[in-house]
Amino acid sequence: MALVKPLIFQIVGYKNSGKTTVMSKLINRLKADHLNVVAIKHHGHGGKPKAPENKDSTNHLQSGALASIVEGDGGLLLQAEKTIWTLEEKIQLAAFFKPDVILIEGHKNEQYPKLVLLRGKEDLELLQLHNVQIIMYWEEIPKEDSLKKIPSLYLNDTNAIDWTKDYLKKQL
Amino acid sequence: MALVKPLIFQIVGYKNSGKTTVMSKLINRLKADHLNVVAIKHHGHGGKPKAPENKDSTNHLQSGALASIVEGDGGLLLQAEKTIWTLEEKIQLAAFFKPDVILIEGHKNEQYPKLVLLRGKEDLELLQLHNVQIIMYWEEIPKEDSLKKIPSLYLNDTNAIDWTKDYLKKQL
Repeated sequence: MALVKPLIFQIVGYKNSGKTTVMSKLINRLKADHLNVVAIKHHGHGGKPKAPENKDSTNHLQSGALASIVEGDGGLLLQAEKTIWTLEEKIQLAAFFKPDVILIEGHKNEQYPKLVLLRGKEDLELLQLHNVQIIMYWEEIPKEDSLKKIPSLYLNDTNAIDWTKDYLKKQL
Repeated sequence: MALVKPLIFQIVGYKNSGKTTVMSKLINRLKADHLNVVAIKHHGHGGKPKAPENKDSTNHLQSGALASIVEGDGGLLLQAEKTIWTLEEKIQLAAFFKPDVILIEGHKNEQYPKLVLLRGKEDLELLQLHNVQIIMYWEEIPKEDSLKKIPSLYLNDTNAIDWTKDYLKKQL
């Protein structure tokens, strides 16, 4: 194993292509192999994530705190607001937890190694993204030259997630 | 100004003594003076803070992620769970945001400098806590020797919060 930690890997694809499901399954398998994961999700078209219904921490934020942390019984919730968060800042925040792997859902124009979800031919343009390491496809796609060079997995193949998990473990 | 940053200060008192209100007002005044604050709250008897109704980040956590970060439109929400969080860990997480001041609501048995809220004589035992720097009282309390040595402010005095804010600024 290399000493560079954590491994950073992205799951990208268009809306409703199954990113969250693939993320969740991967987290689950990695954890089963005793690897710790922090997940980062870009709430692209969803606007601000909904504030929890916890009056006090929301109060602190509305009063002008940079960030508000509330913790009880082992559950910790942090809220923060500023104009722009770069992915690097979110990665640094994730790194605080000293995970083995940081999985990023979305942020497709970033340069980290990534899995691309392709629903069909109309999504093939996503193969132009930087650093595509794995393709996961919904339906059989004509084998183009660009595709041949990248491991391609059928989304519903029961081994697809395990294959991806093993690929990630090899990078650690 | 000293170079030691951030300043860590606690607001303690029994349940319903007004800790959150004092925290919020202080955050507000500090921000008005261009000082950045991160608030930490111990959800003592409240159990786990309510999870936000954001399906995806909660999914990631339930799948076994150490932590889940979701961000959109400048709003960032981080959820994490583990058996025990020490105050030191929460302070380190707060320090990530490079604030000038970390205000802690609760955790009264910790050693940081603190303001103690006293609702009445029955709360006087709180003066035995470590490092009490300011007393904020609800009603006139007999001037005991222990009280005389500590600046005491009447909660409803309109200057009480500003006095506390100025005290904090002198420590920076």
